[in-house]
Amino acid sequence: MDEKLQKTLAELYKLTKEVTNLHATQAVLEWDERTYMPENGANQRAEMTGQLAGMSHEKFTSPHIDELLSELEGSELTKDPDAPAAVNIRELRRDYDRATKLPQRLVEELAKITSQAQGVWTKGRHSGEFGEFYPLLEKVIALRQEQADAYGYEADRYDAMLEDYEPGSTIADLSELFDKFRPELVEFVKAIGDSGKQPDISILTRNYPTERQEMFGEMCAAAIGFDFQGGRLDVTTHPFCTGFGPGDTRITTHYDPRRFNNAFFGIMHEAGHGIYDQGLPAEHWGTPMGDSVSLGIHESQSRMWENMVGRSKPFWEHFLPISRCFFPDALSGVKLDDFYFAINDVRPSLIRIEADEVTYNLHIMLRFEMERAFFSGDLKPRDIPGVWNEKFKSYFGIEPPNDAEGCFQDVHWSAGLVGYFPTYTLGNLYAAQFFAKADEELGGLEAMFARGEFKPLKDWLRKNIHQQGRRYPAKKLCEVVTGKPLSHEPMMKYLKEKFSPLYVL
Amino acid sequence: MDEKLQKTLAELYKLTKEVTNLHATQAVLEWDERTYMPENGANQRAEMTGQLAGMSHEKFTSPHIDELLSELEGSELTKDPDAPAAVNIRELRRDYDRATKLPQRLVEELAKITSQAQGVWTKGRHSGEFGEFYPLLEKVIALRQEQADAYGYEADRYDAMLEDYEPGSTIADLSELFDKFRPELVEFVKAIGDSGKQPDISILTRNYPTERQEMFGEMCAAAIGFDFQGGRLDVTTHPFCTGFGPGDTRITTHYDPRRFNNAFFGIMHEAGHGIYDQGLPAEHWGTPMGDSVSLGIHESQSRMWENMVGRSKPFWEHFLPISRCFFPDALSGVKLDDFYFAINDVRPSLIRIEADEVTYNLHIMLRFEMERAFFSGDLKPRDIPGVWNEKFKSYFGIEPPNDAEGCFQDVHWSAGLVGYFPTYTLGNLYAAQFFAKADEELGGLEAMFARGEFKPLKDWLRKNIHQQGRRYPAKKLCEVVTGKPLSHEPMMKYLKEKFSPLYVL
Repeated sequence: MDEKLQKTLAELYKLTKEVTNLHATQAVLEWDERTYMPENGANQRAEMTGQLAGMSHEKFTSPHIDELLSELEGSELTKDPDAPAAVNIRELRRDYDRATKLPQRLVEELAKITSQAQGVWTKGRHSGEFGEFYPLLEKVIALRQEQADAYGYEADRYDAMLEDYEPGSTIADLSELFDKFRPELVEFVKAIGDSGKQPDISILTRNYPTERQEMFGEMCAAAIGFDFQGGRLDVTTHPFCTGFGPGDTRITTHYDPRRFNNAFFGIMHEAGHGIYDQGLPAEHWGTPMGDSVSLGIHESQSRMWENMVGRSKPFWEHFLPISRCFFPDALSGVKLDDFYFAINDVRPSLIRIEADEVTYNLHIMLRFEMERAFFSGDLKPRDIPGVWNEKFKSYFGIEPPNDAEGCFQDVHWSAGLVGYFPTYTLGNLYAAQFFAKADEELGGLEAMFARGEFKPLKDWLRKNIHQQGRRYPAKKLCEVVTGKPLSHEPMMKYLKEKFSPLYVL
Repeated sequence: MDEKLQKTLAELYKLTKEVTNLHATQAVLEWDERTYMPENGANQRAEMTGQLAGMSHEKFTSPHIDELLSELEGSELTKDPDAPAAVNIRELRRDYDRATKLPQRLVEELAKITSQAQGVWTKGRHSGEFGEFYPLLEKVIALRQEQADAYGYEADRYDAMLEDYEPGSTIADLSELFDKFRPELVEFVKAIGDSGKQPDISILTRNYPTERQEMFGEMCAAAIGFDFQGGRLDVTTHPFCTGFGPGDTRITTHYDPRRFNNAFFGIMHEAGHGIYDQGLPAEHWGTPMGDSVSLGIHESQSRMWENMVGRSKPFWEHFLPISRCFFPDALSGVKLDDFYFAINDVRPSLIRIEADEVTYNLHIMLRFEMERAFFSGDLKPRDIPGVWNEKFKSYFGIEPPNDAEGCFQDVHWSAGLVGYFPTYTLGNLYAAQFFAKADEELGGLEAMFARGEFKPLKDWLRKNIHQQGRRYPAKKLCEVVTGKPLSHEPMMKYLKEKFSPLYVL
C-alpha cells in the first residue's frame, strides 16, 4: 500500500490515541470523584477536569486532523467500507465535523446554564417545588435547539439530538417502533394487573449484610464474565460503569443491607456494560474501531445480563443454593419459584429506575412523547406536569402525588439530555433480538445457565458485537447479527413467554 | 502597580497553574495505580502517565515562560524579596532553568535505563543475586553524572543532585553536620547496647485485627490534625502521601494483623506529610508560594508527628486506655511504661525502614558515605558490598547475611536517586530543632499531648512552616523559625532526654 497514505493514517491514529488517552484520564478523575474523593476536593477537581476537557477538545478539533482526514478520504484505504481503516476514517470524519460545528460561546453557555439548572432541579427534587426550575428549563431547551440547528438535520430537529446518543436513529424510526410496541405492552400490563396475582416481595427486604452482598455480587459478576484482573467494583451514590482503556474497566454499585435487588441487579447491569467495554478490540484502542457503537447497543448488553440472564429462572436454579450460604437469615427455606417470582414482580410504579422489566418501557415511551412535544415547542415547560400526570394515569392507572415523583424525577432534562431516554428502550429491544439470535445459534442457553455456564453467551456477544467496535452503526449491526431490522417482536415474545406463566395468563 | 506587570504576572500564574493541574492529574493516576488499579491496567496506565508527563514538561519549558519571567525579573515586583510575587519569580526561574537544562535524549535514556535497573534490582532482592545489576547500576550512575554536569554545580558534582531534593544544601554542609553528629550518636548507641536492657516487644506482635487498626489509625490521624474532609487513608504496598491540590490529600498504609507498629506509625508518619500539604496556602496553589520547601522539611513534619508526638509517653498516656478498647486481646493488662518502652525499642538492625529513632540516622550516614564514594568514581559498583559490610559492622556491630538485606535493600540507587537519603536525616534534625522551638514558644507540649491536645502544635507548624510555602529555602527557613542554623544538637538532646531514662543511662 501507498507509503504516504500509511504514514498519514499512522499520524492520524497517533493524534486520536492522544485524545483518547486524555478522555481516559478524565474518566479516572471522574471515577475517583464519584467513589473516593474527599468532599473538600470538589472545586480543585472541577478545575482539573475542565482543563483536561479543554485540552482534548482543542487537540481533536485542530485543523490538522481535518487535513489528515481529507488526504485519506476517497483513497484506496476506503475501498472496503467495513475494513478498520475505512471505518475509522468515516467515523472520525463524523466526530470531527460534529465537534467543530458548535460555536465556543454555545458550548460555554450550555455548560453554565445546565449546571445552574441541575442545581435548581436538585433543590426541587427535595422540596417538590419546581417554580424556579421552569425558566431555566426553558433556557436549556432553547440552547439545545440552537445546538441541534448548529449540527443540522434532515427531517426533524430532534434527530440532531438523537445523533449524539444513537447515531443514525431518527424520530421516524422510533415512532414507528414505539407505536407498534405500545399497545401490545399496555394490554399486557393490564392483563398482569387483572390477574390478581402478586409475589411475596418481603423476601427481598430481609437481612442482606453489605459485605456479603459485595462478595456475592462480585462472584456473580465474575461468573458471567466480568474480568476482575482488568476491572473493579466500587461503591458510589449513582451507579455507573466507566473504562480507562484496555485492561481497566470499573463498575460501581450502592448497597442497602435491607434490600437485595438494588445492588445485585445493579451489579449485573453494570457488569453487562463492563463486559462490553472489556470486549472491545484492544488493538484498536484510541480509534472508533476500538469504541462502542451507541448508548442503545451499550444498554442492550447491560439489560441482557441484568434481566435475560440475571432475572431468569435457570440462573437462580444455579445460584439460589449458593446464595443461601451467603444470606442464611434471608433465604434459608425460600423456594426457587417464590424467589424467582419475587425478583420478577410486575406492578405499575412511579419511579422509572425502580420499574420492572415490563412496565419500564412505558416509562420511556412517556418521556419520549413529552420531550418530543417540548423540544418542538408544542409544549411549554410549565404545562409539562399537567400533561405528564394525565398520560401517566392512562398508561399506569395511577397518578403521581407530586412532580418530584412525577415528571421531574429524572436528572436528564435539567442537563438538556433530550433524545437520551429512548436509548434505554432501544437497549431492551436490541437485547431481546440479540438474545433470541444467540439462543438460536448456540442452542439452549437456559440449560447452560442452569449449569452455571455463561461463557458461550459471552463469547457470542464478544464475537458478534464487542469485537466489531464501531464498524457498523447500530441499526446495521442489528441486521448483520440477527439478519433482521430491529423490531419490538422479540421483546414482546420474550416478555410473554417469561411473564405469562408467572401470572397464569 | 504597573498594570502591564500585573498582566504579565497573571499570565505566568495561569500557565504555572495549568502545569500544576497536570501534575496533580498525574498524581491521581499514580495514586490510583498504587491503590486500586487492576493488574491488567498497567500498560495503558503507563501510556497515560507518560503522555501527561510529556505535556506538562512541554508546557513548563515553553520559551514563553522564559519571556514572561524575563519581563518580571528586576521589576518593582521583586523589590521585597520575601513577598509572594518575588518568591514566585525567583523560584520559577530556578525551576525553569533546571527543567530546560536537560537534553531530551538524556531524559529519555534515564527513564529507560532506570526502569530496566529497577526491574533487575527487584529480581535481585528476591534472589539475593545482584550480578546482573552491576552493569546497569554503572550506567545509571554515569547518566546521573551527566545530568549533574548538565545542571552545573559550584563545589561538588554531588551538590547538583542534592539540589533536586534539598535546594541550597551542599555536600560541605552535610559533611560538617554529620561529622559532628556521628561520633555522639555511635557512642550513644553503644551505651544503649551496653545497658543490658531490652523491652518486651512481643506486646506489639499480638492480635491487632486489620479493621480495628484502620479505625484506630484514622482516629489518631484525625486527632493530630489530618483533615479527612480534605483527605483519605487507603491501603498500598509501599506507603506514601500524595496530594491533588487544595482539599485533597491522600495518605496510604499497609496492615499486618500481627504487627501494630508498621501501620500505626506509618499512618502517623504519612499524616505528618499530609498535614503539611493540607496546610500549604491554598490561595497560592499552582505557584511556588503554594508548594513545599524540600524533602528534608517535608520529612521533618512526618518524623515529628511519628516520633516526637506518636512515640512520646504523654501521647500514650492519652491513647493507651482508648487503644485497649480497640485491641483488648493484645493490650488489656499492658502497662503504659511497658508499652512505651516496647514502641521505643532501640537495637541495631539490618533494615533501614524498620530501624528505631536512634539507629536510623546511622543507616543514613552510611548510605551518604557510600553514594558520595561511588558518585565521585572512587568506588566501583562491584566493590559496594565489601565496603558496605565492613562499615556496617563498625557502626552496628553486626554484618548483613546477604546484599538484599545489606547494601541493595533500598530501591533508591537503582532509580539513580543519589542525594536523596541525606534528606531523611535532615528531616530528623529539622524536626528536633523545630520541635524544641515550638515547645519553648508554646510552653509544655507534653502536658498538652497528655490531654489529647495537638492543635497548638499543628497551628504553630501551620503558621511558621506550612503557610510559608517556598518563601525561604530550607536552611533559611530554619533560621527564621528557630533563630539558629540547623544543628545536630537539638536532636542529640532530644534522644538523650528520651532514651536515657528508658535505658537507665
